[in-house]
Amino acid sequence: MNKPMTAPINEQTTDFNAWASHMQSRMENVLEANMPLASVSPMRLHEAMRYSTLGSGKRVRALLAYAAGEFCGAELEKVDIPAASVEIIHAFSLVHDDLPCMDDDDLRRGKPTTHKQYGDAMALLVGDALQSLAFQLISQDKLLKSATQKLQMLHLLALASGSRGMAGGQAIDIESIGMLLTRTELEHMHIQKTGALIRAAALLGAYSADVLDTEKVQAIDHFSKAIGLAFQVVDDILDSEADTQTLGKTAGKDKLNNKSTYVTILGLSAAKHLASELHANAIAALSCYGREADLLRHLANFITQRRF
Amino acid sequence: MNKPMTAPINEQTTDFNAWASHMQSRMENVLEANMPLASVSPMRLHEAMRYSTLGSGKRVRALLAYAAGEFCGAELEKVDIPAASVEIIHAFSLVHDDLPCMDDDDLRRGKPTTHKQYGDAMALLVGDALQSLAFQLISQDKLLKSATQKLQMLHLLALASGSRGMAGGQAIDIESIGMLLTRTELEHMHIQKTGALIRAAALLGAYSADVLDTEKVQAIDHFSKAIGLAFQVVDDILDSEADTQTLGKTAGKDKLNNKSTYVTILGLSAAKHLASELHANAIAALSCYGREADLLRHLANFITQRRF
Repeated sequence: MNKPMTAPINEQTTDFNAWASHMQSRMENVLEANMPLASVSPMRLHEAMRYSTLGSGKRVRALLAYAAGEFCGAELEKVDIPAASVEIIHAFSLVHDDLPCMDDDDLRRGKPTTHKQYGDAMALLVGDALQSLAFQLISQDKLLKSATQKLQMLHLLALASGSRGMAGGQAIDIESIGMLLTRTELEHMHIQKTGALIRAAALLGAYSADVLDTEKVQAIDHFSKAIGLAFQVVDDILDSEADTQTLGKTAGKDKLNNKSTYVTILGLSAAKHLASELHANAIAALSCYGREADLLRHLANFITQRRF
Repeated sequence: MNKPMTAPINEQTTDFNAWASHMQSRMENVLEANMPLASVSPMRLHEAMRYSTLGSGKRVRALLAYAAGEFCGAELEKVDIPAASVEIIHAFSLVHDDLPCMDDDDLRRGKPTTHKQYGDAMALLVGDALQSLAFQLISQDKLLKSATQKLQMLHLLALASGSRGMAGGQAIDIESIGMLLTRTELEHMHIQKTGALIRAAALLGAYSADVLDTEKVQAIDHFSKAIGLAFQVVDDILDSEADTQTLGKTAGKDKLNNKSTYVTILGLSAAKHLASELHANAIAALSCYGREADLLRHLANFITQRRF
C-alpha cells in the first residue's frame, strides 16, 4: 500500500476503492469457506444461514479489521477469521433485528429478509446459530497461534455483542420507541448498539498481529470509537434522505417507527456537521502516524461519505 | 463423597439428594454473582436476563458438570464458571424456544415465560445476550489458569449450541412438525437438540481438571451421550403422563403441537424400556471405575427416575 500514497488524491481514492473491493471479495471467500454447506444437515438451517450472510453487504466491519490489522503489522491471513467472525455477528444481529417483534422489516441488502424467506422460527435459529459460529471460528482458528490471543478476541467479541454491547443497545432502542431521547441518551444507545461491534472489528484486526504495539492499539481504539459513532450518524442521515432502492433496505423506517435519530434530535444540518466532527476526531486519533495509517483514513472517508 | 458409598442404598440416595441440593444452591449463587445487576443499564434487559436464569430450574447440566469434574479430579471452584455457562446457554435456549414463533409457551418453571413477562422483542434480546454472556464468562474466568483449556471449553460450547448442535436440533424440530419421524430421525434430532449441550456440560466439567485423564474423558463422553438421550426419552414420557402443575411447564404440549416423540413413535411402554436401556448404557460406560464414579451413577438414576 505504499504506492497509492504518493499518487494524487483521485488516484489514491481509486486505489482505495480497488483495495476495498478486493477485500470485500476476500471476505466473501472467507465467509463462503467457513459457513456450513447447505448440503449438510440440517440443510434448511444451513441454507438460511448462508442466505443471511453471503452474497452482499458492504463488509465495513471486515474492512476495518483488515485496515487495522495492516496498520498494526498483522499478516492478512491472520485477520481473515477474526474479521469474518465480526461479520457473522453483524449478520446475526440483522436477522434478529428484522424480525416482526423487532423492526419488522421485509427488505435487507436488496432482497427479502431472512424471516420473509424462511419463516420467523427459522430466522430466530439462524441468528442463534450464527452467533455460536462466530465464537466457534475464532476458537478453532489454526492461523492464530497463541491461545491467549484468541481468548482476548473471544472475550472482546462476547462483550461487544452482549448486554453491555450490541444487545444492550438494541434493548435501549426498543425501550425508547416513541420517546424523545436526549442527545446523550441517543449517543449512549448507539455506542452500544453499533459502536461496540465496530470497535471490536478494528481491535480484532489489531489483535491479529503477533506482537502488540500498545500505542497503535490505543490509536485504533480512539479511531474506532469516533468512526463507529460517525457511521451511525451517517446512517440516520441516509435513512432520512435516501430512497429504498439506493439503501437496499426500507428507507424512512426510523420516522415510521417513531425512533429518535440524530436527524430528528439535531436536525439534518447539525447532524451533518456532527458527522464531519466525528470524522475529524477519527483522523486526529491517527495524527502520530504517517502512511501506514492511510488505509484507515481512507476508510474513515468511505464511511462518512457513503451514499448507501 | 466417600462416606455415602459405604452406607445402605437409602442413605446413599439421601446423601446424593443432599449433594444435589447443595450443588443447586451453589450454582444459584454462582449465577447470581455472574449475571449483570438489574440496577445497571440497560436495566430492563438485565432484569429480564436474571428473571430467565435465576431462581429455579433443576440445574441438571450443572450437576452433570460438577459430578464429571469431581470424577476427573477437578477442584470444585474451577467447575463453577463452565457449569454456569452451560446453564446460561440452556436458559437462553428456553427463552427463545418459548417465543410465539417457536413453541409459543406461556409457562416455564412455574412462572410466566420471559416474553409473557417482558414482551417478545425483549425476550429475543435476553436470549441473544445470555448466549454472549456464556462465552464471556469462560473467556474471562480467573480460576482456570490455562488459556488452551478455556479455548477448548469455548470451542465445545460453541459447537454444542450451534447449527450442528442445539440450534440445529431445534431447526429439525420445527421442520418436522406434523411429520411422523422415524425413530432414527427422532434420535438424530434429540442428539443435537438436547444431547449436545448435556454432553458439553459433562465434558466441560471434565475439562476443568488441571490434568486430563483421557480414559476418564472418554468414559464421560460415552456416559453423557447415553444419559442425554435418556433425559429426552424421559422428557417425552413426562410430557405425555404428567400434569402442568407438576411439570412447571405446559404438559401435553408435544401432542398439541403435533410433534413426534418417543411416546408417539414407540408407545409408552417401549419408551420406558428404552429409557431403562439408555440408563444401563450410561452406567456401563463407568464400569471400569469404582466409588469415584458414584456421583455420576446417582445422577443417571436421578435423571431417568425424575418426575418433573
